[in-house]
Amino acid sequence: MPTKTILASWNQTITPLDELKIPILDRAFFFGDAVYEVLRIYRGKPFLLEAHMSRLAQSLRELSIHNAPDVEDEILKNIALNQVQEGMTYVQISRGSGHRSHSFYQKPFTPNTLIYTEAFFEHPAEEEAKTGIFAITQDDVRWGRCYIKSVNLLANCVALSHANEVGAEEAILIRDGWVTEGSTSNVFIVKNHSVITPPLSARILPGTRRRFLVQALKEQGQNVEERPIAKSELFTADEVFISSSIKEALPVIAIDQQAINGGRIGPVAALARALIVQSSQLSD
Amino acid sequence: MPTKTILASWNQTITPLDELKIPILDRAFFFGDAVYEVLRIYRGKPFLLEAHMSRLAQSLRELSIHNAPDVEDEILKNIALNQVQEGMTYVQISRGSGHRSHSFYQKPFTPNTLIYTEAFFEHPAEEEAKTGIFAITQDDVRWGRCYIKSVNLLANCVALSHANEVGAEEAILIRDGWVTEGSTSNVFIVKNHSVITPPLSARILPGTRRRFLVQALKEQGQNVEERPIAKSELFTADEVFISSSIKEALPVIAIDQQAINGGRIGPVAALARALIVQSSQLSD
Repeated sequence: MPTKTILASWNQTITPLDELKIPILDRAFFFGDAVYEVLRIYRGKPFLLEAHMSRLAQSLRELSIHNAPDVEDEILKNIALNQVQEGMTYVQISRGSGHRSHSFYQKPFTPNTLIYTEAFFEHPAEEEAKTGIFAITQDDVRWGRCYIKSVNLLANCVALSHANEVGAEEAILIRDGWVTEGSTSNVFIVKNHSVITPPLSARILPGTRRRFLVQALKEQGQNVEERPIAKSELFTADEVFISSSIKEALPVIAIDQQAINGGRIGPVAALARALIVQSSQLSD
Repeated sequence: MPTKTILASWNQTITPLDELKIPILDRAFFFGDAVYEVLRIYRGKPFLLEAHMSRLAQSLRELSIHNAPDVEDEILKNIALNQVQEGMTYVQISRGSGHRSHSFYQKPFTPNTLIYTEAFFEHPAEEEAKTGIFAITQDDVRWGRCYIKSVNLLANCVALSHANEVGAEEAILIRDGWVTEGSTSNVFIVKNHSVITPPLSARILPGTRRRFLVQALKEQGQNVEERPIAKSELFTADEVFISSSIKEALPVIAIDQQAINGGRIGPVAALARALIVQSSQLSD
């Protein structure tokens, strides 16, 4: 894989990401006390920037991380600095640095901000969109506040690693018999010409792609329902697909080694991806 | 508060903790993909060292973090280096550093190890042991694998901060109506001359102090039961106390603003602390 130096901004100081060293006392390191966003860059521009900024603000608010800087301009600057046309920007804001102590009550932390932009040398979803992906189901053992995009991601890492270990590309998480989301994506199914995705709750991340797709599919005349999906519905669905900023929309053609839609990519998954591709070409 | 330079070991390189900078690509920073231990040092020696090392090994195993170094000697060296008689040693081992990507499957990470030892200028539990502490109850929203001592600690931080905000020193976590543990401690109650603590499960950390106290109280002829404790039992208990490496054993004299044992320190909590103090003086 070709490599290119990624220039990162740490509290607005620019350093190559690979060489960047940060104070160990940052609370992300000791507690995962930080929130983040991943933005897809198309043609040099961040996709759904406003939705990402609004979710970031919500994550910060929910964790009482105050006085975080406005990062929108810094994101645009970092994309330009890295001269990225196709890629992704990663933004992480921690509560700040300080002597290790769980409680943050009445302590005057100053948030630490990391921003970096990475170019894609190959499209991160195109190949998988053509073939479809395999998924497995896994118990959702994450915490109760998954709508906050925090870096407490160990459960996600373990679930996805296990999926990879058994030859799958995603783990679909199941809590009490209900589909929540993927380890790094939201989940949609299609049944009897309805597109169904779990409703927003504390149990899932409000995906920017999810919201985009709900809206865009409705505009195409699709019947879109936001309602709970039982695990068993995955296996009787006409189609299953996942969405994420990086993976866009990917058809799932087998789950737990059972073929979905006869192992073929369905029309709604194909439409979902087409709508994203189309929109990414118009995002001015 | 007096300060003293804390000398930290990062992969065996010694640096003052306040100046220590680490590669941002450490997975603790992006995913909380790291485990830790906190050891109490009495008279220059780590208390319950073997129990901590065994739990650390279990945490590493559960997360498939292989090839972590044996840290026991390094801990002893760091205590000596910092010339600490009374204090604590912090040990954190992350999976390693690498390009940000959730899955760790088949990636050759080299664990990063942090060890530092801090002197206590005042005893961290003596004052509270004399007065007792206030606690509140909070929903336990942590993930499903709390027996792993990972740095995914955001839920703990939020719970304890909220306790502090309302004037309490600990948050006792409740899941589905049952006591799990404190935000940074294990929980015991006393009722009708029985000492009761929740049984080990995926929902609680197997505290080294918890194990020590279960054993030591039994040896004193106390009837100790490991069984689930309903939230309501907290308020009708004769005594409630918490245990942790740093807090040792502390009587809880009020929960959610309701007095426990008439707001007085009970005899079993006092005994628990006496057993710890006694043992810490004999720990050769």
